[in-house]
Amino acid sequence: MEERVIFTNAPGEEIDSIAGEAGATQIFVIADTNTEALCLPLLRDQSTAVATARVLTVSPGDANKNIDTATALWRALGNAGATRRSMVVNLGGGMVSDLGGFVASTFKRGMRYINVPTTLLGAVDAAVGGKTGINFGGLKNEIGVFGHPEATIVGTCFFGTLPLVELQSGYGEILKHALLSGPEALSEVLGSNVADISADTMLRLLRDSIQLKMRIVESDPTERGPRKALNFGHTVGHAFEAIAIERGTPVPHGYAVARGCVVEMILSHMQLAMPTAPLYRVAAYVKENYGAQPLSCDDYPQLMQLMRHDKKNASADAINFTLLKNPGEPVTDCTAPATDIETALDIYRDIMGA
Amino acid sequence: MEERVIFTNAPGEEIDSIAGEAGATQIFVIADTNTEALCLPLLRDQSTAVATARVLTVSPGDANKNIDTATALWRALGNAGATRRSMVVNLGGGMVSDLGGFVASTFKRGMRYINVPTTLLGAVDAAVGGKTGINFGGLKNEIGVFGHPEATIVGTCFFGTLPLVELQSGYGEILKHALLSGPEALSEVLGSNVADISADTMLRLLRDSIQLKMRIVESDPTERGPRKALNFGHTVGHAFEAIAIERGTPVPHGYAVARGCVVEMILSHMQLAMPTAPLYRVAAYVKENYGAQPLSCDDYPQLMQLMRHDKKNASADAINFTLLKNPGEPVTDCTAPATDIETALDIYRDIMGA
Repeated sequence: MEERVIFTNAPGEEIDSIAGEAGATQIFVIADTNTEALCLPLLRDQSTAVATARVLTVSPGDANKNIDTATALWRALGNAGATRRSMVVNLGGGMVSDLGGFVASTFKRGMRYINVPTTLLGAVDAAVGGKTGINFGGLKNEIGVFGHPEATIVGTCFFGTLPLVELQSGYGEILKHALLSGPEALSEVLGSNVADISADTMLRLLRDSIQLKMRIVESDPTERGPRKALNFGHTVGHAFEAIAIERGTPVPHGYAVARGCVVEMILSHMQLAMPTAPLYRVAAYVKENYGAQPLSCDDYPQLMQLMRHDKKNASADAINFTLLKNPGEPVTDCTAPATDIETALDIYRDIMGA
Repeated sequence: MEERVIFTNAPGEEIDSIAGEAGATQIFVIADTNTEALCLPLLRDQSTAVATARVLTVSPGDANKNIDTATALWRALGNAGATRRSMVVNLGGGMVSDLGGFVASTFKRGMRYINVPTTLLGAVDAAVGGKTGINFGGLKNEIGVFGHPEATIVGTCFFGTLPLVELQSGYGEILKHALLSGPEALSEVLGSNVADISADTMLRLLRDSIQLKMRIVESDPTERGPRKALNFGHTVGHAFEAIAIERGTPVPHGYAVARGCVVEMILSHMQLAMPTAPLYRVAAYVKENYGAQPLSCDDYPQLMQLMRHDKKNASADAINFTLLKNPGEPVTDCTAPATDIETALDIYRDIMGA
């Protein structure tokens, strides 16, 4: 199923036209309190459908991407008389599109929905690819489905409201896509940084990054094969993210992924003889722009435990990775013994000064 | 996506072969306390995979097909180290396959599962067609997805453990399928009753009934078009079922459907000039075998309210029906004004002595 991604700085107009085409009888906007305040007014000006929509607001933050919030949204949709011919607009970052996509995909066995990512991370990561989900039992996206948004509308018009740390986080996923794409994309991404990137360059990088992701996703919608490449950096990254949440010092997703990419490049060198030159370039870039994950060897047992629970694992014992032979040459379904992973973490701490 | 339905009286052997083919690393059986006691021992004798499986048991009954039970199952799967390469066997009636299918379809965004219906109703209704779901907010199957079981294994070997009322309930769905199929199937179904049907006849009726359903489902997997035909009898039937649950006097699903078929045949006569002869034949059969739904005109407002919430409705105002021009000639997407529906309920009460 081909995904429809529209690049525009007038997302509201596109919503009206998609809602009209689809014969949507009622529009619901799912937003968090931030996007309700900062992004909804702009969208309302651009769209009749949004101006007359019922807005369902959730508290922001990944910690609220849980079954209680999903339950509250199901209840609100039911109480408002939503039907299968209503349509949901997910206005927010990855938290909103993951949660809203899950709620829409499961309400009455599936309402239609549109993703309007308001963050760079949301645009490049969560809003494309059909994944939806909520956190459960301490694990990220443990419960969810592969959904099918009617469309994802990507633009930079909401990015002006974002703090630098959010842009930096999104750029972490762009870096990951560049590592999957090849040396040319990698050089371009390492040659810029989000603090002083031009709007034009950002839009180009974003489009390249999303299109790379779409090519991979379309070849494998339910993640049984090549799509696992997109998991590069995420086995370790998710564990970094989870451990930080547990300690009450959460790190932005893209920061955890950028750091996870470094650890997994080290593993790639150990297991697949990936050359060290790109590893050191990426490590230096990540160190400068993202810093190191605070880490000691006392954390290893818990990190290993978290990686063992990663949903991409083929079995409960093995830890699954996508590794790189070279930038642009991912190898999926690699496994690594615990000792190698711990060695890679040791080397990471050395290189990064963690 | 073509569904795999296997008719056999040795379901355990099929499970072993499917689990082997699929490379399932771990098997989980979801059962209720009844099927755990009455059906699991037989399946264990037939299947190595089941004999070594972890069994997750839920309390029986539609009232437990809810988000709390789903949450408990997600938690149990997580704690037991289930992965996407594990496989779930749903051993039970419609409650177990709806719930277990929903849990498996959403755990880590989708584990594989096999349905082994242990009731006639489960075999003919819930286990085939990919629908999964839980009740929510007082509405049946309000939350769910269209899932894809690896296979559904249908046999009569578990039916010997069923009370007559359960068999009768399943036969209500067979009656509905016969009404969609045509005069010949209808005559055959009205010519038998489950109290003294032979095993051979039952298996033949069951196979015909499931195959009719599969033909319709395959033409329309997400229920946007012809599949709505299967909803015949269910707009009223679900309302009968819901009102009975609220009053603490639940009726078996197939009883509610059989009675709903009579009301919707009356509406079919009013709106589409369906002949009265089949209506009176079916009404007599339903009256004799299922009795009438206890009903007074004081119940009408609540019934209308329940029908308005039915997830098949195109909008919050209109009530959607599948009606019949004749047996075998369903017309989907009919709507009826409230006055006609109330008239049909009046006539129903007259005919049935309700």
